Amino acid sequence: MTVRSETSPTPMNGAESLVRTLIASGVDTCFSNPGTSEMHFVAALDHVAGMRSVLALFEGVATGAADGYYRMAGKPACTLLHLGPGLANGLANLHNAKKAGSGVVNIVGEHAASHVELDAPLMSDIAGIARPVSHWVQASVLATDVADDGARAVQAAMTPPGQVATLILPSDTAWNPGGPVAEPLPPAPRSQVADHLVDQAVGALDGPDSLLLLGGAALTAENLELAGRIAARTGCALLSEWSNARMERGAGRVSVGKVPYPIDMALEVLHRYRRIVLAGARAPIGFFAYPGKPAVLTRKDAQIVPLAGAGDDLTGVLGMLCDGLAASDLTAAHVSSRQETTVPQGAITPETIAAVLARVMPENAIVVDESVTTGRAFFPATAGAPPHTWLNNCGGSIGFGLPVAVGAATACPDRKVLALIGDGSAMYTVQALWTMAREQQDVTIVIFSNRSYEILRGELTNVGVRNPGPRAVDMLSLNRPDLGWVQMARGMGVEGFRVDETQALAQAVQAGLESDGPCLIEAVM
Amino acid sequence: MTVRSETSPTPMNGAESLVRTLIASGVDTCFSNPGTSEMHFVAALDHVAGMRSVLALFEGVATGAADGYYRMAGKPACTLLHLGPGLANGLANLHNAKKAGSGVVNIVGEHAASHVELDAPLMSDIAGIARPVSHWVQASVLATDVADDGARAVQAAMTPPGQVATLILPSDTAWNPGGPVAEPLPPAPRSQVADHLVDQAVGALDGPDSLLLLGGAALTAENLELAGRIAARTGCALLSEWSNARMERGAGRVSVGKVPYPIDMALEVLHRYRRIVLAGARAPIGFFAYPGKPAVLTRKDAQIVPLAGAGDDLTGVLGMLCDGLAASDLTAAHVSSRQETTVPQGAITPETIAAVLARVMPENAIVVDESVTTGRAFFPATAGAPPHTWLNNCGGSIGFGLPVAVGAATACPDRKVLALIGDGSAMYTVQALWTMAREQQDVTIVIFSNRSYEILRGELTNVGVRNPGPRAVDMLSLNRPDLGWVQMARGMGVEGFRVDETQALAQAVQAGLESDGPCLIEAVM
Repeated sequence: MTVRSETSPTPMNGAESLVRTLIASGVDTCFSNPGTSEMHFVAALDHVAGMRSVLALFEGVATGAADGYYRMAGKPACTLLHLGPGLANGLANLHNAKKAGSGVVNIVGEHAASHVELDAPLMSDIAGIARPVSHWVQASVLATDVADDGARAVQAAMTPPGQVATLILPSDTAWNPGGPVAEPLPPAPRSQVADHLVDQAVGALDGPDSLLLLGGAALTAENLELAGRIAARTGCALLSEWSNARMERGAGRVSVGKVPYPIDMALEVLHRYRRIVLAGARAPIGFFAYPGKPAVLTRKDAQIVPLAGAGDDLTGVLGMLCDGLAASDLTAAHVSSRQETTVPQGAITPETIAAVLARVMPENAIVVDESVTTGRAFFPATAGAPPHTWLNNCGGSIGFGLPVAVGAATACPDRKVLALIGDGSAMYTVQALWTMAREQQDVTIVIFSNRSYEILRGELTNVGVRNPGPRAVDMLSLNRPDLGWVQMARGMGVEGFRVDETQALAQAVQAGLESDGPCLIEAVM
Repeated sequence: MTVRSETSPTPMNGAESLVRTLIASGVDTCFSNPGTSEMHFVAALDHVAGMRSVLALFEGVATGAADGYYRMAGKPACTLLHLGPGLANGLANLHNAKKAGSGVVNIVGEHAASHVELDAPLMSDIAGIARPVSHWVQASVLATDVADDGARAVQAAMTPPGQVATLILPSDTAWNPGGPVAEPLPPAPRSQVADHLVDQAVGALDGPDSLLLLGGAALTAENLELAGRIAARTGCALLSEWSNARMERGAGRVSVGKVPYPIDMALEVLHRYRRIVLAGARAPIGFFAYPGKPAVLTRKDAQIVPLAGAGDDLTGVLGMLCDGLAASDLTAAHVSSRQETTVPQGAITPETIAAVLARVMPENAIVVDESVTTGRAFFPATAGAPPHTWLNNCGGSIGFGLPVAVGAATACPDRKVLALIGDGSAMYTVQALWTMAREQQDVTIVIFSNRSYEILRGELTNVGVRNPGPRAVDMLSLNRPDLGWVQMARGMGVEGFRVDETQALAQAVQAGLESDGPCLIEAVM
């Protein structure tokens, strides 16, 4: 196979027309775990410049990385996945990406059309597997259509706030002569919000029993500044959802708390508010249903103003709200000031970890938070840390943190990534460590080693099971044997350290952040 | 919650009625990775005796274990999976189980009915995710129906040769009062084969240009004995498919080779046969399509007799064939005799590993073969080893071997399990090592550390790409960094050894097989 350009008299094959189209559409990063049916795509990556390929040893790493990449780069990456089972392995993190509003372009190989009817071992219903996690699914039919299909996939992925687009690429459409490189297609703009909703919100935001609930792009530093001015004018509270795709925060930025995860705490907090304006957020509901507890967490008599959804023009609508409230020239309320903290001595607890984070957080860090139970104290404790970015799991499928850290580090090689991950969560996609080592990514990982699906112990109580017996507890315990995180990390080429005291934790995290390349710290609790 | 029996005046909840029904139907093993919505099932496991629960740290381990369990126990286990994403993580090995004809009962938690409409973070289309890999999917609607639904799920899973059945269990149907324990439902019998097909097969099997192609339950020792008598009478060749769910083999058993995986070799072998009788096997096709090569691998003029499918009564039909050919009293042809082999010195290669396996194979071992490129010499070399069982990956989704070894060891605690796995494959479901350590399973794992998706290098050539460049090769290479298998194994509680010479490999495998509990050997190639 020789190198061909789109101006070559010999037509390029479908795979090459797709790679060139993706690059032309701004997709220049591919998180890949290819197989036989994707070999032409791999070959095209080889002789077309401009697409960075990052190899993953498990597909959930590739899809989670694409999620993290979109959150930080603001544009989609593509994944390269092998047939239905390869896509299936990436499905859980695509679920998380979908719920976060992250744009992803999945390229999934398929058998050649002539082979599909034969029910080969790897034959499966790829579109059926893709649909539950995709906003857009299409299978290319002709090699000459692949480029156009690719441009449409990128356009779909960029629909605000971001969508999962899955393009199925039969191998004959990859190897047969393709069409010309397709022009980029413009993404849909963010929707404008109707004036009457702005008027309703202006009326509703008044005093401490009113709440401006923020989500999605309302959590950029600039939009938080607008929200802070609205709070300064109206005295309304500011909160975000429990899980946010990306929030800018830290000293000098408008600080917003979160609706708590534990249902009783959430009910208590939200009971204060009689009028709630939603800006990029959804009306608060329970993460799960619990016997005898409500699913909708707001007061029954609360007025809910659905001002703007995650795909709407949140900057525009917050500006209109400022104007309507004559708040545009005010100084924002709730601006965090820099807080110096001291690190205590002694055993590692959620509270002492929070103090460590507040102490060591470097300016401009990206925090990937999958700390589950351990991390509930982290957020308030770090409000006065140097300015940083915070990424949450919006889909609730654990195994999110390490892959998203890969993607964030790929998008922002000049920033420090701090991944805070429970031991149970980290195991689902532990293969991400190898990709971090391979790419020498500047990620510091703190594993909270409580040797338990600790959240489930609480949930067992929440669903009404008191005093669980040994067989139930055994299903929630990760001891027997203890996981050796340092050994696992070193086995995948990542340096690791194990600490069981708070000052030692602070030193280890500091050292990890100051060094280049990935580093894992097992915090034994 | 107090312990209640089915005779208690207080009704048990739906989850307990399901657990008791599963046990009554013969399902007494659960491979689990639960979450909040499965807590009532977990609680029921706790206070109902008779269900063994095996915890996995990744759902693909649980589903692969259920596959291996069915192959060896001949009855289904259940899995316990958390909502759509948990099922999704188990999908690839369910694909493999489906293709192998393994019966599996998936219990997948779902939000309570009142919660589904709220689109909570973990909400997804569970049935949509399940359908591509399931023969049977149902969501319980009422708690009082859960027991009956469970009995039907087991019945579906036991439909010959075995099916994937997925029961979706909304949490309100788990926590609300359930109905009585359901009676076991009889599985469908294996289908009888029509006489005219037997007559056709009698006519077709004649001489060395005729082939009896065996699959599924035709590969038990007893059925192979029947096939050997048929070959003795007719002079026909005996082969199996490339991948077999379970084959009994070794010294004293009728030996059958396999249709080769590489397409050119398969075409060459199959070109010899003008008449092919299928008994539990399907007509040979290529694993993948390749430009310019046929998908159907048999001669165009070959007569194919579809005697019996995988769900048919293969023992009965092979007996009828023996009778029709007056072969019932013959001595079987192709019986393997015991062969003593010597182990060479020097670098580890596919050929020297094959010699090691022939040398160390213990009687009654279960071999789980995911050796991909490295293993193509293993099968012929071990035909004269002591009698053993061989399990292949029938769905082609790698990440199969370690979980299936967990399931085989769970089903057969008194047998030695030998898992032969390529390094690329093992990484997909590496979390299985922890479950082996936790359960102290008698599994010896040999990892073929060639630091490459070696099969893809060949496939790149097969699809017409000569001289791949550095970016393509980089996508197929697992070095940079090298994986440290011994460290990873020890991090999950499994003892590990690294060898790079053939005699040392033989000693390590022998020691692993002689010791109790799991042991991993990294064979550096």
